[in-house]
Amino acid sequence: MSTPTADSVAGQAVKAADRAHVFHSWSAQALIDPLAVAGAEGSYFWDYDGNRYLDFSSQLVNTNIGHQHPKVVAAIQAKAAQLCTIAPGFAEESRSEAARLIAERTPGDLDKIFFTNGGAEANENAIRMARLHTGRHKVLSTYRSYHGATANAIALTGDPRRWANEAGVSGIVHFWGPYPYRSNFHAENEAQECERALAHLEQTIAFEGPGTVAAIILETVVGTAGILVPPAGYLAGVREICDRYGIVFILDEVMAGFGRTGAWFAADHWGITPDLLTFAKGVNSGYLPLGGVAISGAIAETFAQKAFPGGLTYSGHPLACASAVATINTMAEEGIVENAGLIGESVLGPGLRELAERHPSIGEVRGLGVFWALDLVKDRETREPLVPYNAAGADNAPMAQLAAACKQRGLWPFTNMNRFHVVPPCNVSAEEAKAGLAVLDEVLTLTDAHVI
Amino acid sequence: MSTPTADSVAGQAVKAADRAHVFHSWSAQALIDPLAVAGAEGSYFWDYDGNRYLDFSSQLVNTNIGHQHPKVVAAIQAKAAQLCTIAPGFAEESRSEAARLIAERTPGDLDKIFFTNGGAEANENAIRMARLHTGRHKVLSTYRSYHGATANAIALTGDPRRWANEAGVSGIVHFWGPYPYRSNFHAENEAQECERALAHLEQTIAFEGPGTVAAIILETVVGTAGILVPPAGYLAGVREICDRYGIVFILDEVMAGFGRTGAWFAADHWGITPDLLTFAKGVNSGYLPLGGVAISGAIAETFAQKAFPGGLTYSGHPLACASAVATINTMAEEGIVENAGLIGESVLGPGLRELAERHPSIGEVRGLGVFWALDLVKDRETREPLVPYNAAGADNAPMAQLAAACKQRGLWPFTNMNRFHVVPPCNVSAEEAKAGLAVLDEVLTLTDAHVI
Repeated sequence: MSTPTADSVAGQAVKAADRAHVFHSWSAQALIDPLAVAGAEGSYFWDYDGNRYLDFSSQLVNTNIGHQHPKVVAAIQAKAAQLCTIAPGFAEESRSEAARLIAERTPGDLDKIFFTNGGAEANENAIRMARLHTGRHKVLSTYRSYHGATANAIALTGDPRRWANEAGVSGIVHFWGPYPYRSNFHAENEAQECERALAHLEQTIAFEGPGTVAAIILETVVGTAGILVPPAGYLAGVREICDRYGIVFILDEVMAGFGRTGAWFAADHWGITPDLLTFAKGVNSGYLPLGGVAISGAIAETFAQKAFPGGLTYSGHPLACASAVATINTMAEEGIVENAGLIGESVLGPGLRELAERHPSIGEVRGLGVFWALDLVKDRETREPLVPYNAAGADNAPMAQLAAACKQRGLWPFTNMNRFHVVPPCNVSAEEAKAGLAVLDEVLTLTDAHVI
Repeated sequence: MSTPTADSVAGQAVKAADRAHVFHSWSAQALIDPLAVAGAEGSYFWDYDGNRYLDFSSQLVNTNIGHQHPKVVAAIQAKAAQLCTIAPGFAEESRSEAARLIAERTPGDLDKIFFTNGGAEANENAIRMARLHTGRHKVLSTYRSYHGATANAIALTGDPRRWANEAGVSGIVHFWGPYPYRSNFHAENEAQECERALAHLEQTIAFEGPGTVAAIILETVVGTAGILVPPAGYLAGVREICDRYGIVFILDEVMAGFGRTGAWFAADHWGITPDLLTFAKGVNSGYLPLGGVAISGAIAETFAQKAFPGGLTYSGHPLACASAVATINTMAEEGIVENAGLIGESVLGPGLRELAERHPSIGEVRGLGVFWALDLVKDRETREPLVPYNAAGADNAPMAQLAAACKQRGLWPFTNMNRFHVVPPCNVSAEEAKAGLAVLDEVLTLTDAHVI
């Protein structure tokens, strides 16, 4: 582990230039105070003042292999020396090998890979393929979802980030997915939730017109919108509905894929093969921008003789693909996917459930692998969320205080609405995971104080 | 210069894996035969069979600094060792410095930089900013344009790649820009073309409703759709119209920016400051995926207290930003922007005009810097294009033969419809440029044979 060197002056210069010239995502520019990061390694990163943080966020749930993995860094350096970039029209070694390694791991016959720069573009292209394959227009997605921020991707998104962006895009229909803890279907158990959620989806399709629906897109395990693990039978039910109506089934594995759930793909837990599977983040831990779509034989065949009308300058970027090759091979060699599963079963799952015994603000613990949520409540009986949906300012104070207390204790959190997500790297050690849980045990006393 | 080593077996393996697993942009997958590229340096790249190509395409007009510039490669290697990635919410040295270097070069008060992964996302976010800044919905773009392939970006695009993709997106209106050689306005000279094109735009705005128009987006010099250099006064006229109606003026400099025209930005040639300027490609020659939006003070102010509702996991990606810092500094140190201007004035401009004297299939030579088009015709009198608009198959044979003949002679071409684009790297040498012209002189006899 490198020793962080305090250099506050350098940190101040980085921050001053940031405030002068960098326009930040999802933010009111005058109201943010970004921490200047000086370096990172494994499950940690540090600032310029000597503060080190245990990364329980994996940044934006993307550094599945941790920070600065030496094998991936070496592969990037070697590829940079050989060939940084070449246009998508050529065949190129890293591009070919990344596609082969991904296709080897994707379920079923998802054997053709269209590379993009990230998850939003992957979903944009998946929709494009589904519409042209079916000749239909509408795409169904859930209210609890995030699919990216380009025009169609943000329109698909269920969370409030959609609201300012959906004008001008048509053909996207939102329905309700299963969420047993806060059932939209007045279900009393998981089996009932599954059955009713499928009936709701089928009725939505009937009223939208089955012949108008090109695709259903789901996050296999819903990510930022709640880490919602689908009840047994739900995905198989959606698969069956799609088959019955000739609808393309798209699984968005941008966040859930590449080890996060303790499997290469979350779909593996249920043995489901979608028609299209989108990925990004974990494919190369975001060391370079990369995403893509894995495509079934039937859909690839649609574009065998007829041109696929989509593309981008950096599709199959050699340097990005080389980082994916090294990441996938390293994850395989070091058993990192298995580690994620083991940490979930032996440390995070039991540890979080144990916290729930002592902390009344924890309404539900759910997840798998290194992909967990604490659904925080004011009242376990009514399940009233600790803060209202889309709370800001004073309304959101209990969650803001929780996040701040984590940072003070050297734990970097991931929070969304009334939830605390526990999403460390897939190669986090048991000791690191336990250290994070110990901090959580301290700071959850703050949210407990809001329990009524 | 590295010596290409023939290794046909390795090349066949790369190609076999490509054909098995890589889904290619803009292509019918069964009808393509991608060349396997083994390496690249400066203005050249080579395949596995010992064939070397002079890159007159700069790939997709993005390797402005040429292939494998050692200073940029070294900077990528050094940054990879220090910090590949960190989330957009943090301040980070390369991100801050890239933003500062870009803001230092953009015209006027375009001093805040929102980073994306490429040009499509840059245009998506520019439109988002314009709509929220104005509270209006429509965006005007030209029929001869390319703006990217995500939902809004492809809807803005004027070329046929839009056709299969525009359903479901509203609020995009196409108008005609100036093109003196093939005037839509029956103009007899550039001054008249400019005056009539501005009148057409103003009338389009009047009939669309000035209060409904959020933005006008133009490529400063139209790229793939023709390398159309705007007549003197046109951009100033659009600026004035935008000011009069409170419309945001967006200049897309994804292809024209960062040296391509012999200036840091094409807008510099006319002293124009847009409200938003989008970039990608040349900012780091595509060594990593990177793009962005440079934002005026007034538009940044709109998002000072109110959140900007857009973002992406890899906004301000440290490794991508480090490659931009090295690229910009190297271009400045080595006078690469000035070289592009000089090559245009002293070699490509005169050389292409000289070719036009001998080759009757050249209808017009136009361009500046290392950004030139030959508008090829069947008949100089009628200006009938060598192949019809959006020709394919046998109809496109004259252009396909031209491209194939270039490749046989070791020159990698960029063609679009009836045009041959001459777009080498900005640091191409005079000798390399002349060698390319000599090949053109040979192969244009093929197109001359189609002159009637």
